Amino acid sequence: MALIVQKYGGTSVGSIDRIEAVAEKIAGFRDRGDEVVVVVSAMSGETNRLTALAMEVMDAPTPREMDVLLSTGEQVTIALLCMALEKRGYGARSFTGGQVRILTDSAHTRARIREIDGTRIHAQLEQGDVVVVAGFQGIDDWGNITTLGRGGSDTSAVALAAALEADECQIYTDVKGVYTTDPRVVDSARLLATITFEEMLELASLGAKVLQIRAVEFAGKYRVPLRVLSSFEEGEGTLISLEEELVMEEATIAGIAFERDEAKLTVSGVPDVPGIAYKVIGPVSEAGIEVDVIVQNAAADGSNDITFTVKRRDSEQAREILEKLSASLKARDVSLDKKICKVSLVGVGMRSHAGIAARMFKALADENINIDIITTSEIKISVVVGEKYLELAVRALHSAFELGDPQPAISGN
Amino acid sequence: MALIVQKYGGTSVGSIDRIEAVAEKIAGFRDRGDEVVVVVSAMSGETNRLTALAMEVMDAPTPREMDVLLSTGEQVTIALLCMALEKRGYGARSFTGGQVRILTDSAHTRARIREIDGTRIHAQLEQGDVVVVAGFQGIDDWGNITTLGRGGSDTSAVALAAALEADECQIYTDVKGVYTTDPRVVDSARLLATITFEEMLELASLGAKVLQIRAVEFAGKYRVPLRVLSSFEEGEGTLISLEEELVMEEATIAGIAFERDEAKLTVSGVPDVPGIAYKVIGPVSEAGIEVDVIVQNAAADGSNDITFTVKRRDSEQAREILEKLSASLKARDVSLDKKICKVSLVGVGMRSHAGIAARMFKALADENINIDIITTSEIKISVVVGEKYLELAVRALHSAFELGDPQPAISGN
Repeated sequence: MALIVQKYGGTSVGSIDRIEAVAEKIAGFRDRGDEVVVVVSAMSGETNRLTALAMEVMDAPTPREMDVLLSTGEQVTIALLCMALEKRGYGARSFTGGQVRILTDSAHTRARIREIDGTRIHAQLEQGDVVVVAGFQGIDDWGNITTLGRGGSDTSAVALAAALEADECQIYTDVKGVYTTDPRVVDSARLLATITFEEMLELASLGAKVLQIRAVEFAGKYRVPLRVLSSFEEGEGTLISLEEELVMEEATIAGIAFERDEAKLTVSGVPDVPGIAYKVIGPVSEAGIEVDVIVQNAAADGSNDITFTVKRRDSEQAREILEKLSASLKARDVSLDKKICKVSLVGVGMRSHAGIAARMFKALADENINIDIITTSEIKISVVVGEKYLELAVRALHSAFELGDPQPAISGN
Repeated sequence: MALIVQKYGGTSVGSIDRIEAVAEKIAGFRDRGDEVVVVVSAMSGETNRLTALAMEVMDAPTPREMDVLLSTGEQVTIALLCMALEKRGYGARSFTGGQVRILTDSAHTRARIREIDGTRIHAQLEQGDVVVVAGFQGIDDWGNITTLGRGGSDTSAVALAAALEADECQIYTDVKGVYTTDPRVVDSARLLATITFEEMLELASLGAKVLQIRAVEFAGKYRVPLRVLSSFEEGEGTLISLEEELVMEEATIAGIAFERDEAKLTVSGVPDVPGIAYKVIGPVSEAGIEVDVIVQNAAADGSNDITFTVKRRDSEQAREILEKLSASLKARDVSLDKKICKVSLVGVGMRSHAGIAARMFKALADENINIDIITTSEIKISVVVGEKYLELAVRALHSAFELGDPQPAISGN
C-alpha cells in the first residue's frame, strides 16, 4: 500500500468519457489498496474559453479577478471526477486549492506555493476516500484566490506529494513518458525508464516539453519521486529521480533535445576590453529579451566577436538595439541569422565519461554539418547549427550514442 | 449616501454586453455616492450547462459535488463584473460565498443561510470598492461549498442586506416590478409602487412569480426594504415593505394571482366521522404530493365530499392512491378534474373592508362563471373555476376592483 499523488492534465479530463476513464484508472489503484490523491486541470478548452470571456471585457484583465475566473475551470473537473468515482462505489471528496489551504504568495496569475497543510487531506484519506484537488490554484494569506499560471497543475501535484510525503507523484499526460529524443524526428527514439531531475530539467528547458520546469525543480528540491506516464496507454512511463537513487544505466546520455525557434546575432569586431560582453548583452536583456547561448571569441588582432541566440520572435528587436549601439560599441558589423537551430546532448553520465564532446562533433562532421556555436555545461553539450540540419543532426547523434531501442521491431515497419 | 445591496439575475448578466450594462448601472449609483454591494447569479444557461455535464456522469449526482460544480457559475460572473467595473475606473472586488463567510447548514443543493459576517465586506466598502458577491452559495461549518438551490441568489442578496443593515435591497429582474395581475392576461394591469410582504408572499406563491418566496420571507423577517425593478428599463419598480410603513393606498386589493397547472380531486360519499379528512389527505401527502386547496362538505345524509387540488402533474398518481383506498374509506366515488384553475384576490385591505368576497362572487356570476371551490384566508380569497374561464375571471375581477391603470392610454392602442 502506497500513498500516491496523481495529476491528470486538461486533455486527460477533456470530456466526460475521459473523466470516466480517469476514474477507472484511479479505481484500479484503490483496488490494490493504495491511497490516492488526485490533482486535475481544467477540461481542455475551458481555460481558453474563460480567458476569451475576460478578454471580451478588457484587454488586460485585473489579475485578481482573472484568478477568480480561471480557478473555476479546475473546480468543475474536481466535482465531475468525484461523481464518476462515487458512481463506481468509491468514496471521493473534492477540494479547491483554498479548501486544502494551498497557501501561495499574492502574485496573481503566477503565484508561487509557500505552504500546504496536509492535515485536511490525511484525515479524508483515513476515511477511505479518494481526495480530488483542483490543480493550478491556491489562496494567499488574505484568502484571495490565486493561480500558479498555465501548467501550474504539475506544480500543485508535486507540492502536494511533498507535503503529504507521498511515495510517488505520477503525472499523467498524453505521452508515454520521456523519450531519448522526439519520436517524430527519430523513429527509434526510446522511452526512458528512468532519468535524473537534472537531466529532466535540461531536456525540458531545451525543448522536450513534457513537464513544467517548476514542477521538476520542486520535485528535485523536495526529493519527490516523479513519474511521467500516459493517461491513454498502459505502461510504467518514466521515473524521474535523484541521481543516487538510480541504478546506473549503461548509457551515458539520457537524450537529445532541440530547439527550432532561435536566431543568432553576431556583433563582430568589437574591442577586446573588459566589460564588452556586458555592453552588448546588457541592453538586449534590459529590453526583456531572453538571451540563451552566448559565446565570445577573441581574435589575435585584439578584436572580438560576440555571438548569442535569442528567440526568433525577438530577434529583429534585438538587432535594432544592437545597430543603435553599434557606433558606441565600435563594432564592425551586426548580423542576424534566423535559420539556425540548437541541438543538445544531455546526460549526467558525461561527468564521468571523457570524449563525449569529441564523439558528438565527429558524428556531426561525418554528416558534413557545420557547427556555428558550441557551449557546454556539466551535463549537456549544445551546438547551434543551420536549421536545415536539425533532423539530420538529431538522428546522427541518436545513432552515434546508441540511444535507439535495442529491440528489433517485430513487424516489418 | 445609502448602502444598497443589488441583485442581478441570470438574464441580467447573460452575456458580456449585459454585464457591461450592469456595470454602467452600478457606476451610476457610485457616482451618486452610494455604497454598493452586488449579488449576481450565473450567466443564463450556465447552470443548465453544468447540470447537463453532471447528468452525463450520473443520474443523481452527489449533492456535495453538485454544489462544488454549480457554484462555479456565479464565480465566473463575479470576476467578469469586477473586470467591467475596473475598466470603468471603479474599484471592485469579487467574493465567493465562502470568502465572505455566508455560513449555511450542510443541506447540499438546498442549504439555508445561518449567519453572515459582514466585517469583510464593510472593510472593503470603506476602501471605496464595489463589493461583488457570488449569489446562491455559501459554506458550511466544515468549509464545504453549499448552494441554496435554484433562485437562491435572491435570498443571498436579502440575507446580505440584513447582515449589512443596508438601506435597501434591490432585485433587478426582467420585469419592471410587481403588477396587479399578469399583463399578458390583462392589458391594463398596473405596476404597483408598493406592496406589503404578506401580499407579495401570497402573490408569489399563487403564481405571480417575480421573487423567490424564501427571499421575501427573509426580507419580511429581518425588515429589509426590498425593491423589485428591471435591469433593462428605467423605473422605480415596486417597493415591498412592512405594512405599517406603507402609506395606505386607496385600493384594498393589491392584485390578482392565478395558477393554471392544478387539478381537482373529489372523494365523495365518505362517512362523516372524525379523522376522515386525514384518512383521505394523509396518504396523498405521504406520497410526496403537495396538496393545495382543501374543502370538506358534510351533506345532510351524514356523508361527506372531500375535494382538494394538487399540481396537475401529480394528479394521476393521487387518483391511483385514492382509488386503492376507496374501499377502506367507504367512498362512493373518486373523481379527477384536470381542467380547472385557481384565481385569487390578494390584499391586506381585506382585513378592514367588508364585502370583498361578495363583490368577487358577483363579478364572476355576472360573467356566468361557475365557482367549484372557495377558500379564504386573512388577506386572500381563492376560487377554483373551470380552466377555460381563467382569462375571463381575471379580467372581470381586475375590472370589478378597479385595479387597472387610472391613466388613460396616450396612444390609441
